[in-house]
Amino acid sequence: MKKLNRRDLIAGAAAASAAAAVSTIAKPALAQSRLEWKMVTSWPKGLPGLGTGAERLAKRITDLSGGRLNIKVYSAGELVPALQCFDAVANGTAEMAHDASYYHLSKSLGTAFFTAVPFGLNAAELNAWVYFGGGQELWDNLYNDFGIQAYLAGNTGVQMAGWYRKEIKSLDDMKGLKFRMPGQGGDVLRKLGVTVVNVAGGEIFANLQSGAIDGAEWVGPYNDLALGFYKVTKFYYWPGFHEPGAGLECMINKSKLSTLPKDLQELIVNCCHAENDAMLAEFNARNGEALETLIRQHGVQLKQLPRDVLEGIGNASGEVMQELLDKGDTKTKNIATNFVKFRTNIRRWTQISDQAFVNARSLNFKYPG
Amino acid sequence: MKKLNRRDLIAGAAAASAAAAVSTIAKPALAQSRLEWKMVTSWPKGLPGLGTGAERLAKRITDLSGGRLNIKVYSAGELVPALQCFDAVANGTAEMAHDASYYHLSKSLGTAFFTAVPFGLNAAELNAWVYFGGGQELWDNLYNDFGIQAYLAGNTGVQMAGWYRKEIKSLDDMKGLKFRMPGQGGDVLRKLGVTVVNVAGGEIFANLQSGAIDGAEWVGPYNDLALGFYKVTKFYYWPGFHEPGAGLECMINKSKLSTLPKDLQELIVNCCHAENDAMLAEFNARNGEALETLIRQHGVQLKQLPRDVLEGIGNASGEVMQELLDKGDTKTKNIATNFVKFRTNIRRWTQISDQAFVNARSLNFKYPG
Repeated sequence: MKKLNRRDLIAGAAAASAAAAVSTIAKPALAQSRLEWKMVTSWPKGLPGLGTGAERLAKRITDLSGGRLNIKVYSAGELVPALQCFDAVANGTAEMAHDASYYHLSKSLGTAFFTAVPFGLNAAELNAWVYFGGGQELWDNLYNDFGIQAYLAGNTGVQMAGWYRKEIKSLDDMKGLKFRMPGQGGDVLRKLGVTVVNVAGGEIFANLQSGAIDGAEWVGPYNDLALGFYKVTKFYYWPGFHEPGAGLECMINKSKLSTLPKDLQELIVNCCHAENDAMLAEFNARNGEALETLIRQHGVQLKQLPRDVLEGIGNASGEVMQELLDKGDTKTKNIATNFVKFRTNIRRWTQISDQAFVNARSLNFKYPG
Repeated sequence: MKKLNRRDLIAGAAAASAAAAVSTIAKPALAQSRLEWKMVTSWPKGLPGLGTGAERLAKRITDLSGGRLNIKVYSAGELVPALQCFDAVANGTAEMAHDASYYHLSKSLGTAFFTAVPFGLNAAELNAWVYFGGGQELWDNLYNDFGIQAYLAGNTGVQMAGWYRKEIKSLDDMKGLKFRMPGQGGDVLRKLGVTVVNVAGGEIFANLQSGAIDGAEWVGPYNDLALGFYKVTKFYYWPGFHEPGAGLECMINKSKLSTLPKDLQELIVNCCHAENDAMLAEFNARNGEALETLIRQHGVQLKQLPRDVLEGIGNASGEVMQELLDKGDTKTKNIATNFVKFRTNIRRWTQISDQAFVNARSLNFKYPG
């Protein structure tokens, strides 16, 4: 069979144009074939990583659909405020959103699992759980009540523990702090005596600067540099126990989705997969560079959370998880049960693979660079 | 000019049928619109992870192209033997391949970097380098001489160090072994006095069983269980220093690629991204399960390589890299230089993010499961 090329397609189109003279059947189909969809986000306009990831996802779908499905991205506040994407998609104000599922804890505590839970899964493990460990089915079941379909569509990788206005030397120093941390990470900090607030990314700087909060986590060096937190404080803590690989979601209104031809529905899934791959790589590549800038140009001091703080947070994380298993609503319990089992199993593998490798790479041997 | 899409083509087809009464121009063009491409692989038929990943990639492209580009997958030996995919794509025997670039060391030592090099980058870091660190451009430049375009299209994650017929207690035990290990990992083992052989996956079992080799690495639990190595020996070593995240490639004959319409070219890129995301998740999810089966049902003994072996391998890995920097051909030198710089930078980030997180997760705290 002869290969198809662009000229053949043009010939086909030309024939179709000629055909329009004898038949008008084709015309309405062509006119209807360009859909304009809105994608709302919780991200400040042009924010590297999250914002540009949403733009890239929208462009992938638009381009690969040949313009049949055109996605316009709205940054936080342009169409709906940040953190209100879920309702916007549920009620059809927007057909799609790029967001983080743990912003929807008021709908169900189970939403957190598809972003990140404290001392839960890293990005590679989260992907394994959602795609091949039953996570997607649990997610589908949870969001179905709201008429929303969601797919993983990006990951920040391990985050930083955050910016603190004063140094943290022991677990006692955490008590009484006012700290911005969404999701279950906030619940964990509460157990350590922290007053937890949840404000959107674009509002953190003002809150930090005014002293309304004593500290905040946002994402990592790449995103945090862009939001300028280093202007307020220099203490930047690691590791990000609370979000070891925060998955981002692409939400789609299910009834709108069902009106799409099957191939466009599949295209959305494929583009979400592609963006999930691309965004994590972008964060990992750019975080290192941003870290250098923060340290060298802005005098930021990197600090590891002390061991007793990590252990305190670890135990509190375990308590929060146990409470979800004991007292969560039925769907949350089901998700937590599956998640905890998967976490136990995959940790055995991670320990002898990724963890063992990076630790072996840190042995003192001679290597260029 | 407006981009053509599936609905346009279908509409065009309907219109063209009607038009056939008045014009016969369109008919041949439409008949030509279904391309049949061959994708050769180095994988045994139906092999989990690698083989099924290639199948999934082919299906993605076929389905999302609406059948305009139909990809048929050939397992190792069906069209060309394993490890001969590169030539098959270069000379047009097959339009595409799913393979590992380090099987092409005879073309250039630089090919290894796009799969894995000993103590190099893990999967997350490799993606960061290829997509956002200049790796893809270096790869394009290298393969351009052979008329091949390649994209990342899967990753095994950290591999196991392999199956050994006798226990390895110190660096001395490595001397004189005959071991199957491709790529630069083989060069590293040679420095430790190992005789290195390179046979395709499907031939490892017979070689191990006959005693022609004393050991072999293949991939990890999921793939290794399928190939039955546990029937020959029970000693299964970690961590996989040699392939900390082996990238798989989708190769495409460049002149064939250039005949595709732009949207199909972009679709291939997108599907490779998607498969890159999916395959790593599949390996991570399934490796843990397969490990349990190997241990409980087949009596396999997991063993960590002793510290002096890891250090010896680390130093040898550094020497191999230094030799590429000093004595490689121009393109290999350029790739190695860029790679080593990127590795140094991203390790700083990995150490305070992924590595710090998984190590903190291993602190002794109470958590369900």
